[in-house]
Amino acid sequence: MTRETDEIHMAHALRLAARGNGHCWPNPSVGCVIVRDGVILGRGTTQPGGRPHAERVALAQAGAAARGATAYVTLEPCAHHGKTSPCAEALVAAGVARVVSALTDPDPRVAGRGHAILRAAGIEVTEGILTREAREITAGFLKRVTRGLPFVTLKLATTLDGRIATATGESRWITSAPSRRAVHAMRMSHDAVLVGSGTACADDPDLTVRDMGAARQPVRIVTDRLLSHSPDSRLGRTAREVPVWLVHGPDAPEAARTAWTAAGATLIPCPVTAGHLDLTQAFRLLAERGLTRIFCEGGGTLAAGLIRAGLVDRLALISAGALIGADGRPALGALGLAALTDAPRLALMESRAIGADVFSLWRF
Amino acid sequence: MTRETDEIHMAHALRLAARGNGHCWPNPSVGCVIVRDGVILGRGTTQPGGRPHAERVALAQAGAAARGATAYVTLEPCAHHGKTSPCAEALVAAGVARVVSALTDPDPRVAGRGHAILRAAGIEVTEGILTREAREITAGFLKRVTRGLPFVTLKLATTLDGRIATATGESRWITSAPSRRAVHAMRMSHDAVLVGSGTACADDPDLTVRDMGAARQPVRIVTDRLLSHSPDSRLGRTAREVPVWLVHGPDAPEAARTAWTAAGATLIPCPVTAGHLDLTQAFRLLAERGLTRIFCEGGGTLAAGLIRAGLVDRLALISAGALIGADGRPALGALGLAALTDAPRLALMESRAIGADVFSLWRF
Repeated sequence: MTRETDEIHMAHALRLAARGNGHCWPNPSVGCVIVRDGVILGRGTTQPGGRPHAERVALAQAGAAARGATAYVTLEPCAHHGKTSPCAEALVAAGVARVVSALTDPDPRVAGRGHAILRAAGIEVTEGILTREAREITAGFLKRVTRGLPFVTLKLATTLDGRIATATGESRWITSAPSRRAVHAMRMSHDAVLVGSGTACADDPDLTVRDMGAARQPVRIVTDRLLSHSPDSRLGRTAREVPVWLVHGPDAPEAARTAWTAAGATLIPCPVTAGHLDLTQAFRLLAERGLTRIFCEGGGTLAAGLIRAGLVDRLALISAGALIGADGRPALGALGLAALTDAPRLALMESRAIGADVFSLWRF
Repeated sequence: MTRETDEIHMAHALRLAARGNGHCWPNPSVGCVIVRDGVILGRGTTQPGGRPHAERVALAQAGAAARGATAYVTLEPCAHHGKTSPCAEALVAAGVARVVSALTDPDPRVAGRGHAILRAAGIEVTEGILTREAREITAGFLKRVTRGLPFVTLKLATTLDGRIATATGESRWITSAPSRRAVHAMRMSHDAVLVGSGTACADDPDLTVRDMGAARQPVRIVTDRLLSHSPDSRLGRTAREVPVWLVHGPDAPEAARTAWTAAGATLIPCPVTAGHLDLTQAFRLLAERGLTRIFCEGGGTLAAGLIRAGLVDRLALISAGALIGADGRPALGALGLAALTDAPRLALMESRAIGADVFSLWRF
């Protein structure tokens, strides 16, 4: 196989892996393609909830034809016995001749042992194909395992002058319907959707993925130090259908805790620093619960807090062709910069028109 | 000739016309292409200062070969005797067989008479080819002639959250060098560059077009009710090299008027409404002086005033990959909207990456 052929098949496996983002936590979404003589024999993505793994799905499709074939995997096959036997052993049992992988799994239970099992069985292993692209798609899992924090996309949907509502709080609708649909697609590729308590109280949002056939709804999270959001809200009334997690401070009233618990929400107590929830600590707690990818939809105060704490990885900006002016509400709260050189700088990843708006994706 | 062939040649003429924008005022920038049997015999753009006209340039290139050829003109040839004889007569004298035009000249001295002269001489005239595109390129001249106002492009160069400076006023540099160069190219395609007095005083800008071999520098205008900008500024010190026009109120101090006049600036007195320069009146005065295209570079107060007065035609937005936060200075002042439905809505014309930034052009 040439490297070019390997890259073509790995790119295919990466597209499969990308589909599973948002559905597999706490597991990584992996893609697997099994190929022999240029024919695709099996394709798999980690299934909703994390099982079966991608390799199992692809091997089941390939059946006996997998013998002597090459398996492309976006992440090193697992080596640890969990609910099922490790995927590395399954690949050996299927008789594949070669495994090509994009990334070594940083999980200490794997960390090279998957590749070692394959090699010990006489399978040719090629590592490091499209590693950069695989890091991008697997970013949530990698960040959780290596740093104990989730990968965070901050969405801001603003006017061209950076406003998200008029002075009186009117915000429906600034962006066009196709952009709002794109937001639902972005929610779907994350494990959880997060808003601050101000936005929760002001907008009474639902935060679900609608009209997209989502295999699994993202967890809905509110950072709400005093549990000021009402359990009689859309989130409260639907907390038994789609999970609602509330990150609150030690000073949240007992009555609110009781009411939210009765509504079926999960309460996550978090330390407070200088009168605000310690967001870094909050995100560590969310990662400990298994979340790998969080989609934050504001408001401006939470967005500014996350940026100041260095917790944001990507900015997804929807710029609507409208102007509100300086008396409108800003998309982003105060950052307290001492100098322009302290301003967070972002690199453009992608920009395109969606409906009447411009969507751009930026990397911190 | 098929309509498709006509459109191809007219598109060529329009590209030539576009080059002259910013150099021809008070005249329109026109493009002319002379074609026979598919061969381009002559090409012309209205020359800097407005003379010679595009038709003259193209006819001079074509020489005797123009006899029997087709002339494509982006605007009806002129019919009035000014410094030279009308272009319609020159086309007749050159013996062209056919003239294709995109627009009727709304100037009452022409207004169909150019086309009539051609037809009376037995020349076949086809009107209305690429009219929409020609309106775009000729927008400044058309607006000045039909409405007595200049065509206005508002430029905002902001962070992703709509800020143009930190809380302390630091703004150099938010955008990348390629974007700043693109701003110089935009200045060059306008007759004048305009800033408010706040920006003039804070930034001491030069407002010239640099490093682009500009055939003609745009007029530099400050709206400065009280003439608070110092004549000992960059603008003041260079007012004899490149024109500086100051639009001021009746309450501007006599000493400042004297000093600016001594510096070589042109003073344009303008009425004041509710404590502010009447911007509509100011722009009428600028159009009366011949300006067809004005490029406004802020600041936020002037930008908001122009938008509230409905004087802006295009928004040229440069979005830099940076965040400053709500404590920074907004790109746009207050608009005083009562409801979101009152917000100005803009349609996307173009969007692309420039350097590290995203450039987008919007139509009001």
